[in-house]
Amino acid sequence: MKSPVISGALALGLAAFPAMAQEGGLDAATLRADAAALFEPIPDKVEAIRKSEISPEGHKITPEKVDLGRSLFFDPRMSKSGLISCQTCHNAGLGGADGLPTSIGHGWQKGPRNAPTAFNSVFNVAQFWDGRAPDLAEQAKGPLQAGVEMHNTPENLIATLKSMPGYEAMFKSAFPEDADPVSFQNFAHAVEQFESTLITPDGKFDLFLKGDDNAMNEQEKRGLRAFMDTGCTACHNGVNVGGQDYYPFGVVAKPGADVLPAGDTGRFQVTKTVDDEYVFRAAPLRNVALTAPYFHSGAVWDLKEAVQIMSSSQIGTDLTPDQVDDIVAFLDTLTGKQPQIVHPILPLRTEQTPRPAPM
Amino acid sequence: MKSPVISGALALGLAAFPAMAQEGGLDAATLRADAAALFEPIPDKVEAIRKSEISPEGHKITPEKVDLGRSLFFDPRMSKSGLISCQTCHNAGLGGADGLPTSIGHGWQKGPRNAPTAFNSVFNVAQFWDGRAPDLAEQAKGPLQAGVEMHNTPENLIATLKSMPGYEAMFKSAFPEDADPVSFQNFAHAVEQFESTLITPDGKFDLFLKGDDNAMNEQEKRGLRAFMDTGCTACHNGVNVGGQDYYPFGVVAKPGADVLPAGDTGRFQVTKTVDDEYVFRAAPLRNVALTAPYFHSGAVWDLKEAVQIMSSSQIGTDLTPDQVDDIVAFLDTLTGKQPQIVHPILPLRTEQTPRPAPM
Repeated sequence: MKSPVISGALALGLAAFPAMAQEGGLDAATLRADAAALFEPIPDKVEAIRKSEISPEGHKITPEKVDLGRSLFFDPRMSKSGLISCQTCHNAGLGGADGLPTSIGHGWQKGPRNAPTAFNSVFNVAQFWDGRAPDLAEQAKGPLQAGVEMHNTPENLIATLKSMPGYEAMFKSAFPEDADPVSFQNFAHAVEQFESTLITPDGKFDLFLKGDDNAMNEQEKRGLRAFMDTGCTACHNGVNVGGQDYYPFGVVAKPGADVLPAGDTGRFQVTKTVDDEYVFRAAPLRNVALTAPYFHSGAVWDLKEAVQIMSSSQIGTDLTPDQVDDIVAFLDTLTGKQPQIVHPILPLRTEQTPRPAPM
Repeated sequence: MKSPVISGALALGLAAFPAMAQEGGLDAATLRADAAALFEPIPDKVEAIRKSEISPEGHKITPEKVDLGRSLFFDPRMSKSGLISCQTCHNAGLGGADGLPTSIGHGWQKGPRNAPTAFNSVFNVAQFWDGRAPDLAEQAKGPLQAGVEMHNTPENLIATLKSMPGYEAMFKSAFPEDADPVSFQNFAHAVEQFESTLITPDGKFDLFLKGDDNAMNEQEKRGLRAFMDTGCTACHNGVNVGGQDYYPFGVVAKPGADVLPAGDTGRFQVTKTVDDEYVFRAAPLRNVALTAPYFHSGAVWDLKEAVQIMSSSQIGTDLTPDQVDDIVAFLDTLTGKQPQIVHPILPLRTEQTPRPAPM
């Protein structure tokens, strides 16, 4: 995790330069220069997935892998029940999330945390609220096996995929170098590749960053200024305006148990380090206007309320109502062009395909 | 329901003209002429929805209504839980069905019957296995309110739709003549219009019907001949090769309780007429190779086995293994071009949107 001292320093910065927060922010060139030091626009395309523990060489995005990944992403037969797909909780029509406080999975079980958006997730430092998966390939393996999500096993998944000539052909075409292309690892890679195409460039904020002074209106610019000057950017920066590192939830004051349930200690469950208690990956704020409800608990439906909670628990300063409105207006500019996806026509099952087992 | 005597007559026909079944069938022109008397190809496009009790004037398909219907079809927020959409049980990637014996709905409840495909359903005489909805608009109202499916109410649906400016604008544009366009009836009409675009023209059988002698191979042609000559066409005829009328399940012999559970008396539940006990709408066989498992009970996974059950329970003749294989080969030619659908980007919820209530 990053030291909360950074937040403190920036919160202090606000007090030290109040004039900048109120005036200088509205000069577009200055605002852009300040923002460019903290953020990057979403690129138009991801050409390759970055190096990671799983992919030490990184790997190039190919149309064949993306196509396969799209089918896998939308196919409910990847779950034990035959009912739940990646799309169930990462709905391509709902900003890549499910709009539920916490997801519903196998047997109508309630999951422990709010489903993070799949959109732009390729830009996050790691996946899940606690960062326990280093990349999207490892991420994809989690929900598939989780008892409260898709409740499948790698063995049953591979038996399912190998039973369908349509999938066999797609794996062969996507992984031509592999002698046995239908593997759990290749399943995960293909899903990762498809998800890496789920990016949302050219939101108003991106257009502003790229040089269009008029892409954001005055209120949105004031919101960006306030977002930087009040210390929000200590945790929410980079291309995803968050998602780039870990921070304690409640740097200044812990929010109530409805928002921060005591039972979920966050990254501590991954690292078993006391310093990581109630530490979470900073929420990436791209398309945040589309992905209510908020926080890992999914307890807050209103973006304004979410900003107020962040203000008191993270930066320890009560934002004025105008500042909150301005910041919410700025956050709305993080909504980018949503991906247009043709729903896949899924491969045909055969008599060898394991039957769905919803009960 | 149609009299089972028709089946008997055709079964008799087979015995009377055995030569025709074995030889004449393979002359393409004769085969096409015989088939054209019983079937029609799927049209390339549906221009208007036919007259019905609900739409006495019929109504024209418009791009605005289809677009709205597509969003409604894919939007899980139309259900009380926020988890289940039309697409859940009528998956556009799985031949318009869900691949489950019977569907899973709200609270993971098991539905009573196998989900019929939404594809080409506009051509059916009426909707549901028992025909209780005269058209797709009335059909759409059923699952939305069913406790075991989407478990919503018209009031909560309308409150949901009216809370989202995106939906309000789409309804206004789709129903410009209505003072209050966001209504349950217009919701149903829009879903009906979208579903009327889910048609699958140009399967091998359609191409053959339209004049291409080589669209079907010899085995498929033998299957078509056998399908007509053994009496299958008594119940399965018309554009959907079924779906056009009601017949008793078990004309000759009732199948076992696993396939025909005693508790589901079919159309009797609609008409309360004793003659309608265990009467069902003949299953439309378009894309039947894509929509296992089979029958209203969803008890049979193998198409070959389904044909064998039909043969003993409906036409009272034991087809030879070769005939069964030929008929299955013919049924495979009923798989048409699947619809290409761009997944909709769904309207943004607001603070006024009723929250999902999965529990």
